[in-house]
Order: sequence, then C-alpha cells, then structure tokens
Amino acid sequence: MTGPAPAVAAVRVAVRRALAELETGALVLVACSGGPDSLALAGATAFVAPRLGLRAGAVTVDHGLQDGSAERAEQVALLLRGLALDPVDAVAVEVGGTGGPEGAARTARHAALAERAEAHAAAAVLFGHTRDDQAETVLLRLARGSGARSLAGMAARSGRWLRPLLDVDRATVHAAADLMGLAAWQDPHNADFAYARSRVRHDALPGLERALGPGVAEALARTAGLLRDDADALDEWADRAREGVTAAPGELDAAALAELPRAVRTRLLRRAALEAGCPAGALAARHVFELDRLVTDWRGQRRVDLPGGLAGGRKTGRIVFFANKKGF
Amino acid sequence: MTGPAPAVAAVRVAVRRALAELETGALVLVACSGGPDSLALAGATAFVAPRLGLRAGAVTVDHGLQDGSAERAEQVALLLRGLALDPVDAVAVEVGGTGGPEGAARTARHAALAERAEAHAAAAVLFGHTRDDQAETVLLRLARGSGARSLAGMAARSGRWLRPLLDVDRATVHAAADLMGLAAWQDPHNADFAYARSRVRHDALPGLERALGPGVAEALARTAGLLRDDADALDEWADRAREGVTAAPGELDAAALAELPRAVRTRLLRRAALEAGCPAGALAARHVFELDRLVTDWRGQRRVDLPGGLAGGRKTGRIVFFANKKGF
Repeated sequence: MTGPAPAVAAVRVAVRRALAELETGALVLVACSGGPDSLALAGATAFVAPRLGLRAGAVTVDHGLQDGSAERAEQVALLLRGLALDPVDAVAVEVGGTGGPEGAARTARHAALAERAEAHAAAAVLFGHTRDDQAETVLLRLARGSGARSLAGMAARSGRWLRPLLDVDRATVHAAADLMGLAAWQDPHNADFAYARSRVRHDALPGLERALGPGVAEALARTAGLLRDDADALDEWADRAREGVTAAPGELDAAALAELPRAVRTRLLRRAALEAGCPAGALAARHVFELDRLVTDWRGQRRVDLPGGLAGGRKTGRIVFFANKKGF
Repeated sequence: MTGPAPAVAAVRVAVRRALAELETGALVLVACSGGPDSLALAGATAFVAPRLGLRAGAVTVDHGLQDGSAERAEQVALLLRGLALDPVDAVAVEVGGTGGPEGAARTARHAALAERAEAHAAAAVLFGHTRDDQAETVLLRLARGSGARSLAGMAARSGRWLRPLLDVDRATVHAAADLMGLAAWQDPHNADFAYARSRVRHDALPGLERALGPGVAEALARTAGLLRDDADALDEWADRAREGVTAAPGELDAAALAELPRAVRTRLLRRAALEAGCPAGALAARHVFELDRLVTDWRGQRRVDLPGGLAGGRKTGRIVFFANKKGF
C-alpha cells in the first residue's frame, strides 16, 4: 500500500492540523476562487473533514468583473460538488469603488463569505493562502512603512476564518492540485501588472531571490510570525497600561504616557485617536509621531492636524482630541 | 546673501542635530572611506563642529584588500586634512577570515575606529550611513527571517557611535559631496555583485521600487524605526520579567514562563541560551522555537539540540541547559 504523493500529503496534513480542534459534526466552508490554491484546499478538505467527523462545503464568489464570470463560478461550483462537498454556493457580489480594485473586490467577497457562513452556521471558513501569499503581503506592507501589526501579515486563525496552508509553499500546493486532478482556473488578475500584488509576485520577489538567494519567501513568512508575536505582546501591554494613562474619557495623562516605552505610548495614542473618530486607513505613523511629540517634546505647539476633521492637542497636562477648527 | 545649496544644508542640519548634545570642546571623529557619503559627512562636520564649539577629526581605514589601497588611504587623509580636520589618521588593518568578506572587513574596521577613538579620547565617531543604507540593511535581514531587533537596522546612536545621515537619502548626500567639491572614490566593492549588499542595492531595491512605486527605501527606514521601538519595549518587558521566571541561576521556571506572551517568553529563552554559552550567530529562531515547545507543548520530549555543543531540556518544571552528550 502506497500513501498519497508528498505534495498531497503535505496539504492534507496542514488541513488536518487546522481542523483538529473543531467539534464533531461542525461544518467548514472552503472559500474557493477556482485557482489552484483554493482548489487544492477544497480537495484536501473534502478528504480530511469526513475522517475528523466534520462536514465540508464550499463557497465560490462571482465578482462580476469579467465577461463570463457567472458561468465560470458555476463551473467551479460544479467541480466542488464533484468533490462531494455540500453545501456548495456560488454567490454573485457587486464590487464597490473604494479601496482600489483589489481591496474593493476583497471587501465584497469577505462580506459574502461571512453571510454564507452565518446562513449555514459554519464553524470555520477556510482560505487557501500559501506561504508565498504571506511573503507577498509582508513585502506589500513593508513598502508602506508599516509597523509590526501590519507586517505580521495574515493570521493563520482569526475567529472562525482559518488559513490552513499558510506554512505550505505555493509550488507544493499547485502540485497537490495537479495530483488531485483538479484543473485550475488561472485568475487573469494574477498576470495583470496593474495590481500591486501581481507586481510583487512577478517582479519584486523574484528580484529579491536573485539578490539574496532562495528562501526569501520562507524568511518573510517567518518574520511575519515573529512580528505577530511582538504585536500581540505590545497590544497586551497597551491594554494593561490603558487605565493608568486615562485622565478622563478620551483624554490621556501626558506624564503617565511619558513613563511608558515609545512603542506602548504610540499604540495608546493611536487607539485614542481612532476612538476619537479618526478613520483608521488615513491615520498614519506621522500623525501618531506628532501626537507623541506633544508628550515627549512639548514646547507649547498648537494642534496636531489629524484625518477625519479632527485634531489633537495638549491642555493642562492632558492629550485631548477635538474638532479641527481654526482659532484653537 | 544666499545660503548653501539645499543638499548641503540638509546634510549640515542633520550633522548639527546629531552633535547638539555634545559638550563644548569635545572631539568628534568622522569614519571616512573616501566614498561620497562619508566625504559629505566629513565636509559637513568640518563646517558644523567649530560652530558648536567642538573639535573634528577623521579616521580612514586601509583594509589592504586591493592593490594601491595604502596610497588611496593616504589620498583620502590628504583630502580630509584639506578640510581642516585634525587629527586625521590613516590606519591599516588586517582583515580576518570569519564572517564573510564584508563582515570580516567591518569587524577589522570597527576595531581600528574604536582604538583610534580611545587613543584620541573622542566623544563620538560619526558614520556616513544614509537612509538608503538603512533600507538595504532591513532588506538583507528580512531575507534571513529575522525578528524586530534585527529588522530595526542600524541605530542613529549607539554609545558614542553616531549615524547623523540615517534620515537623509543617498541622492541628497551625493549631491552635497559634489557641491562641496569633494571628489569621491567609488568603492569598487559597491559594484561587485558578489557582495549581498551590492546585489540588494543594484537589483533587489530597484525591483521593489518598480513593483511598488518610489518611496520604498523611505518606507523601509520608517519600518526600521518602528520596529526598533518595539524591540526596545519588549526587551524592557523581558528585563522586568527575568527575576520572576528565574528558578535558579541558569534555570527558568516553566510555569512562570507560560504566563508571559510568546514574544517575551522567547526573548527570555534566547537570553538564557546565550548565557549558557550558545554562540549568538548560530542560535536561530528555530532553536528558540523548540525551547519554547518545552514550555508550551510539553510532552516529555528529550533534549533540544543547541549550537555550541549545548542542549536545553525540561526537568521538574524547569528549563535547563547542559552539555549535549548522549544518554541524557
């Protein structure tokens, strides 16, 4: 008796680990684009889930961005039903205009997946992101000058959303899809250099590997894991410090803040700005840096302009937030 | 009256900020390779230091790695004396064989600079690293899968070693050197693709900029600063937690470790392994990960092999280190 090919075994082992703690009888849904990664995930889940006493279904999302995408979604659904996954839903979504083309598609897709998970009372939704996707994510965020939380990349587990293949390289996952006889649909977006992620995949990461040797994707993924631990610990510190630095609702005590290391202080300032109403996407490191100067380099500066029509300032030893009007 | 050109002004401002806190009469030494970055630094320091009541000298190091390097070092020293820097020393060093060609040269250079600083009782040694150097350092370390401390890159200030130009981009620094009439010697190493840093500079970073747009170097440098703050805070946490997890000299209490966030726990385990005698360069994240499994995933595993002929293990609830012999 021979076992499965190594690539198939690797994907199945990863799925088994991710699903090990779910309760018997629970339903897991595979989010499947029809690309090789999520097809391999679907194939492995269809094999593993019944052996763990779990039920497995799938959802494929039609973003309506290309001609024939509805037919394509139905073909993917047919393939998934052929794996004995049940239920299999093909959901059409309307992609909005905010957050760039990739971001808007993701927002619409995630909403549809959350809705289907709720409707089917699914215990988990599985995504096919690989170690290479993780490396690309880290590089993309690096280019924005982000901190540890952002560089930590995608979580293997976030509530009921799981990414079982985050430690498996893309080549292995693609080989597994081939070996399972799952004919993948190569998303034309992946070859479209207008998308930043595709540029990272086809230009930046290969350039890094040429310069630094193989193993860059693995190293980036490992970095992401280490930085995730760091960000978790620093968030915990900020949680604990919060009460001690809160002078009044929405006001922070500057002297108490000054006692904390900068990494914790800036996290508390960032949170306070968000709670005051600053939009998260627009609140940049430079805004937080200027708020921090109110604490550590106080020379009577006027307000710090913040996004969302807000401002921060210092009044009688407190860091406060207010509507940004002239005349403060 | 017109001021200096913007590039010259930018470099001078950066030097002035770095030197602002030194005591009147103190001596600063510029570490000068003869390349445009450190020549611009030397020119700006020669201008700024007397105006701050400081004395300024320079040291140039002959690594003896190319024919004519001794003559070249004397030419650089001549140029530096022409800037009215005093003292100006040209020091020949012998580059050893460990740490790769770049690492061995750096080790020898740093030892010579430290010796000269000591001999002249210098208050500071200044290095010409730019924001682009910082970005390259971060990319190089990323490719090793490093944690925050390593990704934090080079410090603007580390004891008496200062890097005044770490926030200034290389193009500005090169323009300043040109404008000050300082003819730079282009280090042939910088065009030699055998060196990982040169490959990052000429291949990897330009590839990232093509993929992600301009500003990648600036973003990487900003990331480094944020991660430096994080690493400082987590080291502080580890310092504070240390006593509470120490069961006996060189032994850690597993239950107390398990209460800490992983980022703090792994820092304490790493420190303990180093103190037990593991060589820092050989102690990798995977070793620390296996030590951490003795804490969080204890199933009676045998020893964890560590570099330097050591091993870690768990005995009666304590994490211990010992010589790695068979039969444990």
